[in-house]
Amino acid sequence: MSADPIAHLVRLLARLPGVGERTATRLTHYILAAEDEYARALGAALVELHELVRPCVVCGNYSTEERCAICRDPQRQNGVICVVARVPDLEAIERSGSFRGRYHVLHRLLSPLDGVGPEELQLEGLVARIKAEGIVEVVIATPLSVDGEATALYLAKTLASPGLKVSRIASGIPHGGELEFADQVTMGRAFHGRRDLS
Amino acid sequence: MSADPIAHLVRLLARLPGVGERTATRLTHYILAAEDEYARALGAALVELHELVRPCVVCGNYSTEERCAICRDPQRQNGVICVVARVPDLEAIERSGSFRGRYHVLHRLLSPLDGVGPEELQLEGLVARIKAEGIVEVVIATPLSVDGEATALYLAKTLASPGLKVSRIASGIPHGGELEFADQVTMGRAFHGRRDLS
Repeated sequence: MSADPIAHLVRLLARLPGVGERTATRLTHYILAAEDEYARALGAALVELHELVRPCVVCGNYSTEERCAICRDPQRQNGVICVVARVPDLEAIERSGSFRGRYHVLHRLLSPLDGVGPEELQLEGLVARIKAEGIVEVVIATPLSVDGEATALYLAKTLASPGLKVSRIASGIPHGGELEFADQVTMGRAFHGRRDLS
Repeated sequence: MSADPIAHLVRLLARLPGVGERTATRLTHYILAAEDEYARALGAALVELHELVRPCVVCGNYSTEERCAICRDPQRQNGVICVVARVPDLEAIERSGSFRGRYHVLHRLLSPLDGVGPEELQLEGLVARIKAEGIVEVVIATPLSVDGEATALYLAKTLASPGLKVSRIASGIPHGGELEFADQVTMGRAFHGRRDLS
């Protein structure tokens, strides 16, 4: 209980990404003016979130069960693991239908400035899975950012072993993208990764 | 309890003003990645909001007590009431230090399109206060919008009585505002409300 419940909620909301004090105040007044029911449902949903949702013990994807829906799905292709940084990335890949194998969610990227070193990546689980599940390919789908690229290189080096293919998703001009507006790094990647059409 | 707590929270957050499904998803994943403690505190703050905060029985301002801090404050000027549409407007006036009297919060404006007619303004309380508190001036500080202006006119007509001054806050070019960029209505008001400096 807080002496000033309005200011208390504003402070908590203002910690959300992209929400400043003005937006937090606006949201709080919206919630105050809305029916009781809505504030209570939103509050309960937040309290339940961490209680009900846990990282899958196998791959790290969010789930209300011990093992996530993808790990439990017998239809998925075995032998291939896609490594992603965050669950929203996994969801974007799922929406695209580009990949039918299993996943591994790191929940972080190498980032020396934020104090995330190789140890924090906790790759023991992934290394153990590669052996136990007879994995033949690991597709690294970390972001094409500085941290994402550094993590991809570190993963490739760490996972390297005979008989295991470690691949990286392609980088280049996005679908529908205008060459005119592509940045220099993307343009360089598009040329470097050019495919033979002959 | 929901079968999919993540989707459930996304749906609830997406009802907030200015929050679409993409933003709601981003916020939900931020909350998932944050410490347990934060989600629980935010949830509790939301549940408590409507439980602890109620409209002041006198003026309608939000308060954790039956009568709000302004109504309880013996230092405030009696005899003058400022009528506002919403509590954030009251707070903006308080921050400016422009007014030291009492308030009345309507919580709505006349808006035929949204089904808010004169009855929904519930002016009985305000009329009773004007008599009981010996009010000599009512300052109408509803917004300078179509609905705010209509409400101001309706209030002036309804409250009109001998010995009671009903005033309206001034409209014009804002402080620091460039005449070049003022809209025509504002410019018209600035001329119409011009003050004699001679």
